Amino acid sequence: MSDIYEKSIAFHKKYRGKLEVKSKIPIRTHTDLSLVYTPGVAGPCMVIAKDTEQSFSLTWRANTIAVISDGSSVLGLGNIGPEAGLPVMEGKAALFKTFGGVNAVPIVINTQDPGEIITFVKQIVPSFAGINLEDISAPRCFQITEQLQGVGIPVFHNDQDGTAIVISAALRNAAKVVNKPYTSLRVVILGAGAAGLATARMLLGLSCESDICHRIPKGTSVKDIVVIDRRGALYSGRDNMNIYKQAIAGLSNRAQYKGDLAGALTGADVVIGVSGANLIQPSMIHTMGKNPIVFAMANPIPEIMPDVAKKAGAVIVATGRSDFPNQINNVLAFPGIFKAVVDGRLKTITSDMKQAASEVLASLVPDPTPDHIIPDPFYLRLADILSRAILKTKKPLI
Amino acid sequence: MSDIYEKSIAFHKKYRGKLEVKSKIPIRTHTDLSLVYTPGVAGPCMVIAKDTEQSFSLTWRANTIAVISDGSSVLGLGNIGPEAGLPVMEGKAALFKTFGGVNAVPIVINTQDPGEIITFVKQIVPSFAGINLEDISAPRCFQITEQLQGVGIPVFHNDQDGTAIVISAALRNAAKVVNKPYTSLRVVILGAGAAGLATARMLLGLSCESDICHRIPKGTSVKDIVVIDRRGALYSGRDNMNIYKQAIAGLSNRAQYKGDLAGALTGADVVIGVSGANLIQPSMIHTMGKNPIVFAMANPIPEIMPDVAKKAGAVIVATGRSDFPNQINNVLAFPGIFKAVVDGRLKTITSDMKQAASEVLASLVPDPTPDHIIPDPFYLRLADILSRAILKTKKPLI
Repeated sequence: MSDIYEKSIAFHKKYRGKLEVKSKIPIRTHTDLSLVYTPGVAGPCMVIAKDTEQSFSLTWRANTIAVISDGSSVLGLGNIGPEAGLPVMEGKAALFKTFGGVNAVPIVINTQDPGEIITFVKQIVPSFAGINLEDISAPRCFQITEQLQGVGIPVFHNDQDGTAIVISAALRNAAKVVNKPYTSLRVVILGAGAAGLATARMLLGLSCESDICHRIPKGTSVKDIVVIDRRGALYSGRDNMNIYKQAIAGLSNRAQYKGDLAGALTGADVVIGVSGANLIQPSMIHTMGKNPIVFAMANPIPEIMPDVAKKAGAVIVATGRSDFPNQINNVLAFPGIFKAVVDGRLKTITSDMKQAASEVLASLVPDPTPDHIIPDPFYLRLADILSRAILKTKKPLI
Repeated sequence: MSDIYEKSIAFHKKYRGKLEVKSKIPIRTHTDLSLVYTPGVAGPCMVIAKDTEQSFSLTWRANTIAVISDGSSVLGLGNIGPEAGLPVMEGKAALFKTFGGVNAVPIVINTQDPGEIITFVKQIVPSFAGINLEDISAPRCFQITEQLQGVGIPVFHNDQDGTAIVISAALRNAAKVVNKPYTSLRVVILGAGAAGLATARMLLGLSCESDICHRIPKGTSVKDIVVIDRRGALYSGRDNMNIYKQAIAGLSNRAQYKGDLAGALTGADVVIGVSGANLIQPSMIHTMGKNPIVFAMANPIPEIMPDVAKKAGAVIVATGRSDFPNQINNVLAFPGIFKAVVDGRLKTITSDMKQAASEVLASLVPDPTPDHIIPDPFYLRLADILSRAILKTKKPLI
C-alpha cells in the first residue's frame, strides 16, 4: 500500500496537482480582447442583469459545478482538514470532467460549523450550476444537505446518494448472480454514517426530504435490513442515536435485533461495509447464509480484503477501489448525475432520478457474474446514458 | 457600441462562457485512476495533513487563485449583481491564464454585506494561493481588503491597486513625453472610489495598511493632487466624506481647493478619470495647462472619447479599452502580480512590490510617444518580467 502512496505523492508533486483552468478560446488579438473583456463583455453582463437565468447560457455556469468539502471525513482518513482534503476534491473534479464532460471546481473551506457551511454554499450559488458536497462527516452532512435543498440549483451529497445509487445497482445484479430475489435479501449495513444511512434509505425505497421519509410507491425495495454502528444494531428505542439513525431504526430491523455485527451476519445474505479498515472478520462470513455477498467499501483499506473474504466463503466481493474487480464507487454515478444537472438545467435531483440512475446502471451489465456485477468506470458513454435516463424522469411542462 | 455588445453576446452564447477546467493528465486506465483517485490519493492527503504548506506543492493550489466579486460595481455598469458580474470575472480569469499562466476561478457571491464577504473569503482560503477581489464598490472595498490582510495568502483588490499600478506607470511615461518632471505634475483625479483613492495613494507615495497611511521614503511622488467626487474637491474638513476620503483629503489638495471639476482643471497638467461615462467636457480641457494629459478610464464608455479629447487640445489620451491606443488597464498588472504570488508563494503583496511593478511596467516603453506610453497587453513575457521585478523586492531570509 505504501508503494502506491509514494507513487501518487511523486505524481502529485511532479504535476503540482491535477487540474488546470483554460480559456476555451485563444486570446491573441485586440479584437479577441474586446470581445471577451472590455468593452464587449458589458453586453452579456447587461443581458444577465435583466434575467439571471441567462447566466446558464452566457457563462461557463452552463457547464460548471463545485465540489465542496470541509475536510471533516476524507476517505477513511477521518477529519484531516480542508487542505488535506484538497487532493481528493481535485481528483473528483478531474473525474467529473473526464467521465462526464462537466467542469468542476474543488473548493475546501475552513469551517466545520453546519450553519456556516450552509451560509457559505448559499452565497456561492450564483457561480455554479450545481453543488456536489463531498466528505462531510455524519450526522452534520444530513442537516447541511437537507437545508440546502431549494436554493435554485441542485445540492447533492455524493457520499450519501452517489454511493447509495451505485450500491443498490450492484446489489440488484449480485442478487441475480446468486439467484436470490432482490427484495427478499437479508442485508446488514455496517456503518451508520453518510453512506450507510443513505444506502439504507435507498434500499428500503424511501424518499427523505426535510426530515420526513416517505416510501416511494413504485420502488422495488429490500425488506430486511439491519444497520450496525459502533454500538451494535440500530433498533427502535435504542439510546445514543442521532435523529437520522432513529428514523432508520424505526423503518428497518423489523426483528428488533439488538446484538452486534457478528450476530447480525448469522444467516444474512449480504453485508455492506461503509465503515472502516478491517472491521469484518473471516469468521463472520462463515456464519452468513448460502453464497455470501460482501461489499467492503471503506477507502483506502476495505473492511476485509477481497482475497480473505473469498477464502472465507464469499461468492461475490466488491470494494470501492480501482485496483480490484467490482469497483462500487460513486465515480460510476456522479459524472452522469451532474451531466444531467447541466444538460437539463435541473434545480433539484429527485428520488425518481436517483432510482432511475440506479436502475440504468444495473441494466448495463445484463449478464452479471461474480467478478462483474457493475459496469467499469471506463464503460463507453456511461455518463451520457445515466444523464439521459435521469432526464427522462423530468415531468414535461404542461 | 451596441455592435460590439451584440457580437460579444453571440460569442458568449456560442461558447457557453469562456473557461473550462481540465485534467492535466489523461485518465485512461485503472492505474491512472488509482494514482489520481482512490487508493493512491490518500498518499498526498496524509502528507498535507501533517503539513498544510504542502498543499502548495501537491495540489493545483500551487498555481491557482480565485477572482471573487459581489457584483456591486461591475465595469461602469454599477450594482448589477453577482450573476451579471460573472462574464467579467470569467474574462479576468481567462486573462490570468492567457497572460500570466495562472489558473483563476471566477466566484461571484450573493451577499454584499462586508462582514459576510470577509467571512466568506476567509473560509475559502485553503482552496487557493491568492485572492483577487474584483468590482466591489467603494468604500466597502477598502474595509474588506484591509481586514483580509494576514489571512495566509495575498488578498488584492484589483480595482484599487491593479489600476493604480498601471496609471502610475503610464503617468511616468506621459510626463516624459510632454517633458515635465513627474513629481511636479498638477494632477486632478475625477472619482473617489476604489480606483480613484488607490491611485491618489500610489501617486502620493503612500503605503496604507490597517487604516493608517505612511509615506514610502524612497518613492518618487507627485506632490500636487486634487481628488474630485460627485460633490466636488476633497479637502480637509469637508463634510459628506467617508473615512477613506477624509484620509486622502488630509494628504492631498495642499491649496485647499474647494470647487468643482471644471475649476480644478484650470491650469492642471493631468486629469485621470476613474468615474463614469462622459463626465469630462471638451471645454474643461481647453482650460488645462500646456500639453494636457487625459486618462479617461471609465468602462465601457470613457469620461470623454479620445477623438473629442484630442480635438479639445489633449496631447496624450489614454482609456481602459482594448480598441484605442494607450490602454491603461489593470490587465497589464494583475497577471504578473499573481504570477509572482504563485511562483514566490507570497503571503502578502507589499507596497514595495506594487512600486516595483509600476516602475518596471514604465521601463518597458523606454521612448514613449503620445500614442505609446504603456506596453501593449500582448508585450512578450510581460507577466514574467513583472513577476521577477516583484520577487526581487522580497527580503532574503536571514
